[in-house]
Amino acid sequence: MIQTPAPALDLTSDVAHLTARLLDLESVSGHEAGIADAIESALRRLDHLEVVRNGDCVMARTMLGRSERVILAGHIDTVPLPTAAGSRGTVPSTWEGETLFGRGATDMKGGVAVQLALAAALTEPTRDITFIFYDHEEVEASLSGLGRVAHSHPEWLEADFAVLLEPTDGTVEGGCNGTARFEVRITGKASHSARAWMGVNAIHAAADVLVRLRDHQPATVHVDGLDYRESLNAVKVTGGTAGNVIPDSTVIEVNYRFAPDKTPEQAEEYVRALLEGFDVERTDAAAGARPGLQHPAAAAFVAAVGAEPKPKYGWTDVARFSALGVPAVNFGPGDALLAHTDDEHVHADAVRACLQALVTWLS
Amino acid sequence: MIQTPAPALDLTSDVAHLTARLLDLESVSGHEAGIADAIESALRRLDHLEVVRNGDCVMARTMLGRSERVILAGHIDTVPLPTAAGSRGTVPSTWEGETLFGRGATDMKGGVAVQLALAAALTEPTRDITFIFYDHEEVEASLSGLGRVAHSHPEWLEADFAVLLEPTDGTVEGGCNGTARFEVRITGKASHSARAWMGVNAIHAAADVLVRLRDHQPATVHVDGLDYRESLNAVKVTGGTAGNVIPDSTVIEVNYRFAPDKTPEQAEEYVRALLEGFDVERTDAAAGARPGLQHPAAAAFVAAVGAEPKPKYGWTDVARFSALGVPAVNFGPGDALLAHTDDEHVHADAVRACLQALVTWLS
Repeated sequence: MIQTPAPALDLTSDVAHLTARLLDLESVSGHEAGIADAIESALRRLDHLEVVRNGDCVMARTMLGRSERVILAGHIDTVPLPTAAGSRGTVPSTWEGETLFGRGATDMKGGVAVQLALAAALTEPTRDITFIFYDHEEVEASLSGLGRVAHSHPEWLEADFAVLLEPTDGTVEGGCNGTARFEVRITGKASHSARAWMGVNAIHAAADVLVRLRDHQPATVHVDGLDYRESLNAVKVTGGTAGNVIPDSTVIEVNYRFAPDKTPEQAEEYVRALLEGFDVERTDAAAGARPGLQHPAAAAFVAAVGAEPKPKYGWTDVARFSALGVPAVNFGPGDALLAHTDDEHVHADAVRACLQALVTWLS
Repeated sequence: MIQTPAPALDLTSDVAHLTARLLDLESVSGHEAGIADAIESALRRLDHLEVVRNGDCVMARTMLGRSERVILAGHIDTVPLPTAAGSRGTVPSTWEGETLFGRGATDMKGGVAVQLALAAALTEPTRDITFIFYDHEEVEASLSGLGRVAHSHPEWLEADFAVLLEPTDGTVEGGCNGTARFEVRITGKASHSARAWMGVNAIHAAADVLVRLRDHQPATVHVDGLDYRESLNAVKVTGGTAGNVIPDSTVIEVNYRFAPDKTPEQAEEYVRALLEGFDVERTDAAAGARPGLQHPAAAAFVAAVGAEPKPKYGWTDVARFSALGVPAVNFGPGDALLAHTDDEHVHADAVRACLQALVTWLS
């Protein structure tokens, strides 16, 4: 992947067009340097902000001595570009009327554009604001730029309330499901494929794992007034060594999105029970977050924005803020159902409306 | 893979030690240049042989004007080296008493050593002999060095009878199963793995293919007096793109080793029927060979060697000779059940006995 030199971003331009500019800066996880450079240099031109950088995480904040501080956070990485011919959710972005197509259009460069526009527009906000633009959200939790900052610059994550600008289609989404990944390893015995009876086929032996996953009915769990729908899926499979060898190994990667009534340990127990008899190893996990909407700061934000709260299915870093004691909600432009699809897109008005709601709340 | 310069091979040394020398020349398919160089230069030192080379296929023959001509053929490539720690069927070779371990020990550098020893020893054979040492046997049939030679030097494959020195443990094996490869492609629909219900999981959808393959009972088919046992297996599987995306594609590679009563087309029909409802594409096929032991030249060889013929399960190039109208059998040192295993080995006496049997027949 080639990082093009960061062009200057105009933070005072229309926020939908600013979104398009960000989409054109390809930033698949692990390759965020270019977009981070562009964001950092744009923010450093704003005299009312203190700016620091940690790796490819850029942070900026006002220091007005307000009685409340809020965090506005968003990740700057995306999942890999689509590979299917004709996919529009790719780089560079394209406009179709007022609809903007491109990788990250919903997840979540619209939200990042709103953060940047607010950073430039709100020189005198009613609450002090900390802006966090972070890397490595779309990969293993252990790589998270936000997690890294929580260790290296914890003072930057002190706040009364946080808004994560993940796509919620303009509604407020409380809490989030947790996520855990597992590797299921099936071992066989290699032999020449012309004498299969001398070996044990590790791909055939994987059939039962896939049958159990296919037949599993994911639960919907009621937590603090909201319904969290779970997902449990094989996301990768690989097995076999050569076209004439009975395969002696198959590895299935499983992703479990579990409701916030469970800890990662309970999620692991659940998957181990479902796949009993197989070798299951947990490789990654991040706890969910209960909605937390009863917290006063959260309630005040919901009242100001004026939308009915819903549950968040996808894991988001509200869980990380929640673990740090900072109540947090998801509120951002775009339809989360389009995230990671080949056809990812956002409507210009959705980005503009999100910006307007936050300007109203913070002015 | 680094090709070391070809050291001189001493074709008059003990044939078991000559086998060890060949094992030390790593020659995984596609990387046969080094061993082909060594074989070519050793053969060119023998004045009674005419030698030509085509790619990494080396051919040598006597021109004594005998009434019969026989081919002695063997491939010089091997499957990839084993990856498991402690595997002994690797490079370089090792001796344990009189047992020789190394990649290719059974499949089939013992046979190649016998060919080379015969080439040096038999300056006045009772039948004219054509020696063929060819590349790319352990990969797709379309790459076969023997197939290439059949097109470019067909005169080199004219003979009354052919012996392929594939491992048969000193017995004579007639005919061989055919082999065909298929790709089964399962298509789904990508979505974020936290909202699995928006996508279609192509790995879960592959479960039924694996169940059918796992539950399939391969047949044993009686052909011309011999029993051919079939094998039908998934040999590779790959699916999924990222840990948080519902996979939209899974590909399963299937290898069918079918009895010589079937054509490749009939084998394809059989697999299509078994996997009905799935997208199956045949990617490679090679017909089997009926035993052909009723042919006078084959019968004479069997009588001279004095062993009870058995069926050959693995596909070998007897099928290619059979298609050219040259009756052919498998006869070589080593246990075919060890071929392609992590622990491939051959006993020194097996190689010596094979050499002795052929010297007796041809002197």
